[in-house]
Amino acid sequence: MAQGALPGFRDFYPEQFAERAYIMDVWRRVLRRYAFSEYDGPPLEPLDLYRKKSGDELVGQLYSFTDKGDREVTMRPEMTPTFARMVAARANSLRKPVRWFSIPQLFRYERQQKGRLREHFQLNADIVGEASVTADAELLSIALDIMREFGLTSSDVRAGVSDRRLLQALVLEAGASEDALSAVYAVIDKRGREPVAISREKLEKAVGSSHVADKIDEFLGITDIDNLFQRYGAVESIAQHLDRLRAYFQYLNALGFADWVKLDLSIVRGLAYYTGIVFELFDTAGEYRAICGGGRYDTLLETLGGVDLPALGFGMGDVVVGELLRSRGMIPATPPRTDYWVAGEEEALTPQVMSVAAELRRHDRSVEYSLKPQQLSRQLKSAAAAGASHAVILKTERFAAGEVTVRNLEAGTEQSMPLEDFINSL
Amino acid sequence: MAQGALPGFRDFYPEQFAERAYIMDVWRRVLRRYAFSEYDGPPLEPLDLYRKKSGDELVGQLYSFTDKGDREVTMRPEMTPTFARMVAARANSLRKPVRWFSIPQLFRYERQQKGRLREHFQLNADIVGEASVTADAELLSIALDIMREFGLTSSDVRAGVSDRRLLQALVLEAGASEDALSAVYAVIDKRGREPVAISREKLEKAVGSSHVADKIDEFLGITDIDNLFQRYGAVESIAQHLDRLRAYFQYLNALGFADWVKLDLSIVRGLAYYTGIVFELFDTAGEYRAICGGGRYDTLLETLGGVDLPALGFGMGDVVVGELLRSRGMIPATPPRTDYWVAGEEEALTPQVMSVAAELRRHDRSVEYSLKPQQLSRQLKSAAAAGASHAVILKTERFAAGEVTVRNLEAGTEQSMPLEDFINSL
Repeated sequence: MAQGALPGFRDFYPEQFAERAYIMDVWRRVLRRYAFSEYDGPPLEPLDLYRKKSGDELVGQLYSFTDKGDREVTMRPEMTPTFARMVAARANSLRKPVRWFSIPQLFRYERQQKGRLREHFQLNADIVGEASVTADAELLSIALDIMREFGLTSSDVRAGVSDRRLLQALVLEAGASEDALSAVYAVIDKRGREPVAISREKLEKAVGSSHVADKIDEFLGITDIDNLFQRYGAVESIAQHLDRLRAYFQYLNALGFADWVKLDLSIVRGLAYYTGIVFELFDTAGEYRAICGGGRYDTLLETLGGVDLPALGFGMGDVVVGELLRSRGMIPATPPRTDYWVAGEEEALTPQVMSVAAELRRHDRSVEYSLKPQQLSRQLKSAAAAGASHAVILKTERFAAGEVTVRNLEAGTEQSMPLEDFINSL
Repeated sequence: MAQGALPGFRDFYPEQFAERAYIMDVWRRVLRRYAFSEYDGPPLEPLDLYRKKSGDELVGQLYSFTDKGDREVTMRPEMTPTFARMVAARANSLRKPVRWFSIPQLFRYERQQKGRLREHFQLNADIVGEASVTADAELLSIALDIMREFGLTSSDVRAGVSDRRLLQALVLEAGASEDALSAVYAVIDKRGREPVAISREKLEKAVGSSHVADKIDEFLGITDIDNLFQRYGAVESIAQHLDRLRAYFQYLNALGFADWVKLDLSIVRGLAYYTGIVFELFDTAGEYRAICGGGRYDTLLETLGGVDLPALGFGMGDVVVGELLRSRGMIPATPPRTDYWVAGEEEALTPQVMSVAAELRRHDRSVEYSLKPQQLSRQLKSAAAAGASHAVILKTERFAAGEVTVRNLEAGTEQSMPLEDFINSL
């Protein structure tokens, strides 16, 4: 008997597939505007590819196994290592900056929770070979343009942005030691997801001083770049990073997204590899997990691929985007409809029905007809059930005279005309 | 350091991705004409799903493993079991006939040979719920329409068709016993892939008679339905199947594919589950493996999904299609090109360059600009390297007066105009 799909895996019936296709179409359309090229890699990769970047912690969540050739392999949990491998292999011949995107299906064996799947499709967009902050602005504007293309506005979605270099300078300036940095980032990363008192306690413990914790709390509360400038503009170790961030905001303004972006120094991004500007997109109502996250990772290609090239990118999954759009009735979930249903008054006309259908298809129309003999009235019911917009009816006598009857199934109107005229009108 | 992909797996750099996207676009375009809806299932499925259909032989070629929840799972080696499971789960509510297609990536651990990959993308198109031969004609016409859409003709590709029911009737009429049928099919299936003498010897052994083998050899040589009718039309057990096959040819003629189809009774199709008309597409030059294979499998949904519905379908892989098209220079492999490169005469114009780029993108154009400060001449070289068709140049004084210069990078001509006029002309 029929079993279902594995837990955490989705079946895409035509309605669900139409939703997925809509999301992917928007992704592709927007990335095309930014002159990005699509690539893909294998969904199965050597396990070592992930060990390098993430260590053994991630490996516990992988769909990994030993293949029949005794290789340790895994279904890909993320795209960046594959991307780094592919770019590294052609690092010299690729035009820079590399502007590539991909929409891989990714797999993680996570504990089952509501809304947590074990697979999802994730748009990955990356730029390689450009250290300028213009590239950072270009990257974020892609993510925001996608939101806009979905019909969302800056009232629905915002980008919180930070800079790991700025954060580091601020934390050091507050009086924390270099050694405390990782611990401080970890605390900041969890802020907002745990009680304030606990967060504060952890921070004090990480920096070993209530005074230093106060200073960190202070700058984390600043959400305006000008305020930050007034407060820290005179501190040289900080000012250079403020200049860059100011340029970033200026460029995002030029690209038309000023309203969508806000400074949020508490954004660290869990992944250890970011080195510069980082961002997250979230719904302003706070109902969903982050819609998108990314930033600059200038050292990762060296680590993973052995080529020293600056890089930045983001990932955006189909699941959160789908939930957000669905909750607002903003996702068209109807599979494409049939244009014409060809019907014949009697069974003897079946070959003629097929010929007319074939002719319409040669004109790139979506066409269906009854595959078994049916009364004309029954055929027209089938046409309506299929959602066809028009029926083309072959009536025995009229068709012998070269005429077909075209019925608009929505309006209920119909018109007879020579078949040739009808075809020429397409 | 960078390793490559696993053996038998493909990296799709933008050029290869463009080829793959072209093939899939054609598939989707044609299936849309036939009013088919796209679906998908999980790339990982319970191992049992395949044991049911194919037994333990196939299981030796699977990417199967035990997941972290102790389930026996496998990367999908074919789509039909997933399709059967999904249709069965909604058998009552789905409009019949079901007309669905999918383009899954499939995985088999095959011994490495030239041109044999361990993954490929396979178009699967199936019709469920219709026993009439019109459905068989409709199905084959889809496969042939795809060939035509690729630019191929009936000189390049042919469909060989047979009917398992007719073949059985002919073999029995020749004097073979019911018990010998499987053995005879196995011999017929291998004909053409082994020496004639060996084939003949095996056939005699299977039927236990030189005379019966002669009769089988005789009808296998007939490639014209009318000849077959003359010879066997009077035999009742055979005539009913000839009538159906005649209607099939008549319908394929009506659908415009008469020239593409030939009777070939030696087509058995390796898979044990076909029950009626079967077909294969092959290149007339005989250079490649079968391009496509399919047919009617009226009992499979019962076996796999527990619902008794007639069904038929075909599979067409991207690898053989790609090889065939590539060998004839018929596959466009260029990623989509950039429409506009926006350039500024001096660095101070960067925000303006970005604004113009953003405006062009809002008009759905593909746009790029230099992400780092460069001399104008250098920017235009980058534009040419990117394959942009036009450059939009912001010259300091002209732009202050609201004008841009649009240069056609192919023709080398350029024209200055108000930015507003340029945007309105898009």
